[in-house]
Amino acid sequence: MKIFGIDPGSRVTGYGQEKDFIKRLSIIFSGIEDLLDQHNPDEAAIENVFMHRNADSALKLGQARAAAISGTFKKGIDVSEYSAREVKLAVVGTGAAEKEQVQEMVKLILGIRNKDLKFDESDALAIAICHAHSHPMKSIVKEL
Amino acid sequence: MKIFGIDPGSRVTGYGQEKDFIKRLSIIFSGIEDLLDQHNPDEAAIENVFMHRNADSALKLGQARAAAISGTFKKGIDVSEYSAREVKLAVVGTGAAEKEQVQEMVKLILGIRNKDLKFDESDALAIAICHAHSHPMKSIVKEL
Repeated sequence: MKIFGIDPGSRVTGYGQEKDFIKRLSIIFSGIEDLLDQHNPDEAAIENVFMHRNADSALKLGQARAAAISGTFKKGIDVSEYSAREVKLAVVGTGAAEKEQVQEMVKLILGIRNKDLKFDESDALAIAICHAHSHPMKSIVKEL
Repeated sequence: MKIFGIDPGSRVTGYGQEKDFIKRLSIIFSGIEDLLDQHNPDEAAIENVFMHRNADSALKLGQARAAAISGTFKKGIDVSEYSAREVKLAVVGTGAAEKEQVQEMVKLILGIRNKDLKFDESDALAIAICHAHSHPMKSIVKEL
């Protein structure tokens, strides 16, 4: 099974005051649509964001996240949500892990050796790994 | 020119803790796509949301808004953003107008007499009216 992991929006939220935010949402939306067309995953997983401290960045992050999720609707694949804590717990074994630890474990689990990953990349892969681990359990729970 | 006004998400944010938020985003997204197919507007306008006081509702509102905006991407129409203050100023003449005043002016401007409007409806129409008023000016500014 091929899982598509989405790390929502640090790139967007990090950009500060964009002049054309709608254009940026459109780039995220089309980017996801194109990647799904290209890779044809069976399912997708995305980090759940809540209780953000800063309302302004929460608004931006939320919008980036929803544009990414909207990009999956045409394909009609299931999108599962996981909190950052769940992702870290699944990948590192502790919900309080640092980004560096997540990255190391992602490389170890996926056998990535001679390639540097950006945090964006390792975070997205970690979300997909978390889904791969949780999924059998979720299916069982659904069936009960 | 036909303008499509979007009032982002009070319905979604008002629902409290939804069980399936992604499903709700998908309903907003498809709803907008369907309405655009049905009415074929030339342009769209949406309220800009920022500086929300509550980070949790900001996240929900932001996502509802982005799902709505994403619903316009297939059609490729321009989406303009206006603050609540700009909308009230354009419709009522004061940026501090109440919802009831906005509603009354919307009905007056559009000649709606024997029909009650919900606030959702009058707000969306107010955004479209604001765009209709601002648009000639924006075009001139772009040309300069």
